[in-house]
Amino acid sequence: MGYEKRWRALRGAMEKAKTAAFVVSNPQNIRYLCCTHLYTAAPPTYLVFHGQDEPVAVTSWLEMNRTALECHVGEVRVWCNLPGKRSDGKKAPLVLKKLIRELKVRKALSDRPMEGMSGVRFRPSDVIEKNRTVKDVEELRLMRRAATLADLGARRLRDLLDGRRNELEVANELDHFLRSQGAQAMAFPTIIAAGPHSAYPHHDNVASGMRDTSVICDFGAYVGGYCSDITRTFLLGDTDRRLAEAYEGIRAAVAAGTRAVRPGRPARAVDRACREALKERGLDGYFVHSTGHGIGLEVHEAPTAGPFSKDVLKKGMVFTIEPGVYLPGLGGIRIENDVLVTPGGAETLTKAGCGP
Amino acid sequence: MGYEKRWRALRGAMEKAKTAAFVVSNPQNIRYLCCTHLYTAAPPTYLVFHGQDEPVAVTSWLEMNRTALECHVGEVRVWCNLPGKRSDGKKAPLVLKKLIRELKVRKALSDRPMEGMSGVRFRPSDVIEKNRTVKDVEELRLMRRAATLADLGARRLRDLLDGRRNELEVANELDHFLRSQGAQAMAFPTIIAAGPHSAYPHHDNVASGMRDTSVICDFGAYVGGYCSDITRTFLLGDTDRRLAEAYEGIRAAVAAGTRAVRPGRPARAVDRACREALKERGLDGYFVHSTGHGIGLEVHEAPTAGPFSKDVLKKGMVFTIEPGVYLPGLGGIRIENDVLVTPGGAETLTKAGCGP
Repeated sequence: MGYEKRWRALRGAMEKAKTAAFVVSNPQNIRYLCCTHLYTAAPPTYLVFHGQDEPVAVTSWLEMNRTALECHVGEVRVWCNLPGKRSDGKKAPLVLKKLIRELKVRKALSDRPMEGMSGVRFRPSDVIEKNRTVKDVEELRLMRRAATLADLGARRLRDLLDGRRNELEVANELDHFLRSQGAQAMAFPTIIAAGPHSAYPHHDNVASGMRDTSVICDFGAYVGGYCSDITRTFLLGDTDRRLAEAYEGIRAAVAAGTRAVRPGRPARAVDRACREALKERGLDGYFVHSTGHGIGLEVHEAPTAGPFSKDVLKKGMVFTIEPGVYLPGLGGIRIENDVLVTPGGAETLTKAGCGP
Repeated sequence: MGYEKRWRALRGAMEKAKTAAFVVSNPQNIRYLCCTHLYTAAPPTYLVFHGQDEPVAVTSWLEMNRTALECHVGEVRVWCNLPGKRSDGKKAPLVLKKLIRELKVRKALSDRPMEGMSGVRFRPSDVIEKNRTVKDVEELRLMRRAATLADLGARRLRDLLDGRRNELEVANELDHFLRSQGAQAMAFPTIIAAGPHSAYPHHDNVASGMRDTSVICDFGAYVGGYCSDITRTFLLGDTDRRLAEAYEGIRAAVAAGTRAVRPGRPARAVDRACREALKERGLDGYFVHSTGHGIGLEVHEAPTAGPFSKDVLKKGMVFTIEPGVYLPGLGGIRIENDVLVTPGGAETLTKAGCGP
């Protein structure tokens, strides 16, 4: 991973703010800066940048071996939590405090509010979150692999949705298949929502069957610590005409949203394009959530593509386009793609076709 | 679920504090009071108790159907988040505020700090968390089923750990098996840590094989929204003598910890018993975490069984006993059981034997 390049952007922000240090404590930002490959295990507690030095990781005894061996840092400081020594959750800040005092830092940037650090003035900086929105070559390589796995899953679903398996069984077989194909883990709990359940954007799978109805399948894979997130909806058997109409509306909305993607445009333009496509069909009142969200190390990260988003699209951003229509008591339709902002528009990373 | 009984305890606290209302906002507490079956889907945002009335749920448009149909509440109030209406995350508190004004409440209890609710004085109460530590008959029925599934998994592992599968493959097969046997989902990402990896208490599974080493397997199942959490360690092939010694030490520590369980005793007595058993074998320095944690709707909840715990054991509590020994670079040993506090001592819910 190109960690050094990521550090340069952060040091640029330090220079601009005339501060000698940057204290990072958001675990996902820490992953971004020194250990992207972790996906469930804990990254270090703090990462401290000072001048041009390699960052210092502050971590617990439990994680010290991993941090020293696997994290791209210059030094590791360990807060101990051993029997006989009092553990009250204040150990990590104490080690951080000592380090900051040692560095003689009076002013520092931080990605999260810092409390109880007397003697230092912290200023908030979102430079890391902003940088994370634009994916570099290595990140895109992993995200393409994660998207390809999502595609494999979407294709596999046609066989799994055979009318004999219930929601829990379909989810179990899908997850097992993707993990056997190279997903390190699922990026979030797979949703298989059939019939009226598909009218809930969020759903806990249950042991109910599916027949003559819509089935929303929403899932994603972790690859090298990066996520994909895909939704496909299947119309099984003899379905209500309104569902087929909603399906066509959602297809049109995804296409319109994708066409609206361009570097320099506000992300809310994508949301508007989706809503307008649905409005033409009288379906916009059933689209009750935002159009999409950034994706990368986290399933949900910046930017957002909703009606009130203030984000501007940039080349290299990856975000989801996922309009949905939910008809209470009947069912829902949602299609979700992961989309990369290219110089000329958008490249859809999740390519699996879907259709009634 | 015996929700009404749970409400009585909460109303008792209201009466004692001479307050007419209780505002619940911790999602796990809300599950406990009206929708234990949810495991990944979101419960209502707030639950408001007033006098003897059935509670009012405040929830989002997205969740309103589920809340009305599936949650055990008397009324549902919905905060809308529709296109054209500004969504700034302040909608739910606004609806709550209106409700509280309508109830003419000036003093209320709450399970979390409440901000921006002028005109009402909130006092913190942990009565719900405390109640949750003692499981009722229905909770124990689900937790026994979750523990039985964990046992099934532990037995299945003997076949899965055949020296040909890597960590990721073993985890995938185990999860698939347990979900096919009735687990709604895994309670947390399954850890299969082989060789030096088993010296990390936390670990991301990787595609490395396993041979002549210890393998720590830590996993659990969701059943009806309740969790189990089990760890078994297997010694494969020709292992270092120190691992076999550590294994015997950990077995003795689990036995000693379990024998120390009794209603009325401090939870830290269980931790002490485990440490003393390890000390006799010179292994206590390698046991770097607490002995255990409560388990129920959450994998980690009150009480804690660590050296500094202030919790006292009560009949009906369920918590883990999970001493571990970690030999950096070589491997680790951990055994974890879910234990129910009985009138006379402890009943171990996770019964699967384990052995080198």
